[in-house]
Amino acid sequence: HLIAILPGDGIGPEVTAEARRVLDALALDLAFEEAPVGGAAYDAAGHPLPDATLDLARRADAILFGAVGDPRHDGLARELRPEQAILGLRKQLGLFANLRPARLFAGLEDASALKPHIAAAIDMVIVRELTGDVYFGLKSRGTTADGLREGRDLMRYDEAEVARIARVGFETARTRRHRLCSVDKANVLDTSQLWRDVVIEVAADYPDVALSHMYVDNAAMQMVRDPGQFDVIVTGNLFGDILSDQASMCAGSIGMLPSAALDGQGKGLYEPIHGSAPDIAGQGRANPCATILSAAMLLRHSLGLSDAADRIEVAVAAAIAGGARTPDLGGTLSTREMADRVIEALA
Amino acid sequence: HLIAILPGDGIGPEVTAEARRVLDALALDLAFEEAPVGGAAYDAAGHPLPDATLDLARRADAILFGAVGDPRHDGLARELRPEQAILGLRKQLGLFANLRPARLFAGLEDASALKPHIAAAIDMVIVRELTGDVYFGLKSRGTTADGLREGRDLMRYDEAEVARIARVGFETARTRRHRLCSVDKANVLDTSQLWRDVVIEVAADYPDVALSHMYVDNAAMQMVRDPGQFDVIVTGNLFGDILSDQASMCAGSIGMLPSAALDGQGKGLYEPIHGSAPDIAGQGRANPCATILSAAMLLRHSLGLSDAADRIEVAVAAAIAGGARTPDLGGTLSTREMADRVIEALA
Ligand SMILES: CC(C)[C@H](C(=O)O)[C@@H](O)C(=O)O
Ligand SMILES: CC(C)[C@H](C(=O)O)[C@@H](O)C(=O)O
Repeated sequence: HLIAILPGDGIGPEVTAEARRVLDALALDLAFEEAPVGGAAYDAAGHPLPDATLDLARRADAILFGAVGDPRHDGLARELRPEQAILGLRKQLGLFANLRPARLFAGLEDASALKPHIAAAIDMVIVRELTGDVYFGLKSRGTTADGLREGRDLMRYDEAEVARIARVGFETARTRRHRLCSVDKANVLDTSQLWRDVVIEVAADYPDVALSHMYVDNAAMQMVRDPGQFDVIVTGNLFGDILSDQASMCAGSIGMLPSAALDGQGKGLYEPIHGSAPDIAGQGRANPCATILSAAMLLRHSLGLSDAADRIEVAVAAAIAGGARTPDLGGTLSTREMADRVIEALA
Repeated sequence: HLIAILPGDGIGPEVTAEARRVLDALALDLAFEEAPVGGAAYDAAGHPLPDATLDLARRADAILFGAVGDPRHDGLARELRPEQAILGLRKQLGLFANLRPARLFAGLEDASALKPHIAAAIDMVIVRELTGDVYFGLKSRGTTADGLREGRDLMRYDEAEVARIARVGFETARTRRHRLCSVDKANVLDTSQLWRDVVIEVAADYPDVALSHMYVDNAAMQMVRDPGQFDVIVTGNLFGDILSDQASMCAGSIGMLPSAALDGQGKGLYEPIHGSAPDIAGQGRANPCATILSAAMLLRHSLGLSDAADRIEVAVAAAIAGGARTPDLGGTLSTREMADRVIEALA
């Protein structure tokens, strides 16, 4: 199995290095190859997603991604900015299904801004469509008939795009509490009306999953009021961007949450949901758990190594329950020391 | 001054009736005229926004709106559903500026799902653009070249639309803590890039207001983590729909929050941010405070009666501080009794 490691910017190199140490500790038969991405790649090769990096990503069985984003590149044209690397990888590799679990780890009940008994109930997966919607529809800047500057972005989905992400949502619900909530804005958007129609059609194949529908504005409210009500949420690219970040923050400690972007054939890109955190880069203060848990998702979803994935997840939970804390969690452990605690818990 | 009262569906008639009693108690020189809207209008006249209702709304100096939405109409085609009434009124009357204050009333610190010290700091106004964006761009359902069903909605803004809502944002910030946060998704959307460019241009006229920019996904996180950081937020129609509902829920007790939709010439539509709540309609259990506070906004923004508006707002705060509570706030007062407490506090 070839795993591409794309460390990226800011704390990306530190956290991916520790996740790799955890993988090494499992003594699986894995090969690793590394390439620059994001601002680091722009500095090295003039583009946030150089051909060599994209080529490695294509060859690999799975990709472990750190984070991209660097304030030094804020002045660049959008197509050269670090974030374009992640958008490019998703589109080029057809990584249409983003799985974002949000849950609270025992011992971190106080980390959330929500009341502890409300936060403690959080245990959901957001399934976000990742290669369509207004993200990838036709864009333009031009002028109106009256000579005014105008910006335009087309929101669109076709039935095939909706059906395949809906299936991921239903399948995910089957591995959990068998409840799927589809989020849209069908009272306003034609795209959402199609979305809702197709989700209902696909539901016929999943009679064992309870399907509900919610408007996105209501979902944003319910996510604050009572996030424990959600099992699996399936939604489009834009609504998923907003709701999944909101859900992560409701669970507190975004340093703990992993994500996967899958192509439906086993290939996937795995990354912590936190960003590059340039303010603490290079200081050994970053929490590596989100990346370590992303590596666990990689083993499960791309390599079929569920037992090894379970072992990592149990070890992280045990380390946290045992009091291991990086500064973001109110502790003093370094990035490396936190990973050491996880590796000890693996044994 | 002619005030149109559009009670609408569910609890709309109950709460608008109490707000009218509060206005009557101020003995101002106001005339009222009432017309059906939403599901009630569909039942009476076959359309959620009949011509006679639209005509009254045009003639009036201001509109006090209850709520629309009725599950009995869920089966109707979208253009006949109750929500279309509010979209139609916004567009037909050019009500482009939605002001949504979110704050916590002293005494209601426990109503929020957020920790009390975090919720207590909430005091913001969200300024949402209301007549453009993907809400009103070209929509269609058709088929792709491959024969797949497709849904399409065009997101768009021109510079004039952005500039006028940006000005409302800056002016609102001037009446408060002089901080404006513009929310967009400029790392992905051309519409947002134009939005950001124009907001920065308009800022030149408001050197006394501190302008910042935030991506919408980050804003959804910050709204949970530390909502007290926001003074005024300005954003587009879609992002404003999501964020303003999220902010309301962060403040707890959505039965307390009013809103205004303004045309820039003094005309406005004022409504509680809660919906029609069909489950408790007709039981006298609804909290009338959000509608009473909407009437206060009406006096201030459409009639220039700031003193009367202040009196209402102080009276509502006093009634709450004095322990007046409808069931949504954990109390037993009826809709009418709650309004009585506010009227007593006016004296
Ligand atoms: C960096 C940005 C383009 C990206 C997105 O909006 O998808 C990020 O917010 C995410 O959620 O991975
Ligand atoms: C009912 C619906 C069309 C409306 C909107 O999305 O604008 C509502 O959610 C609101 O915020 O007033």
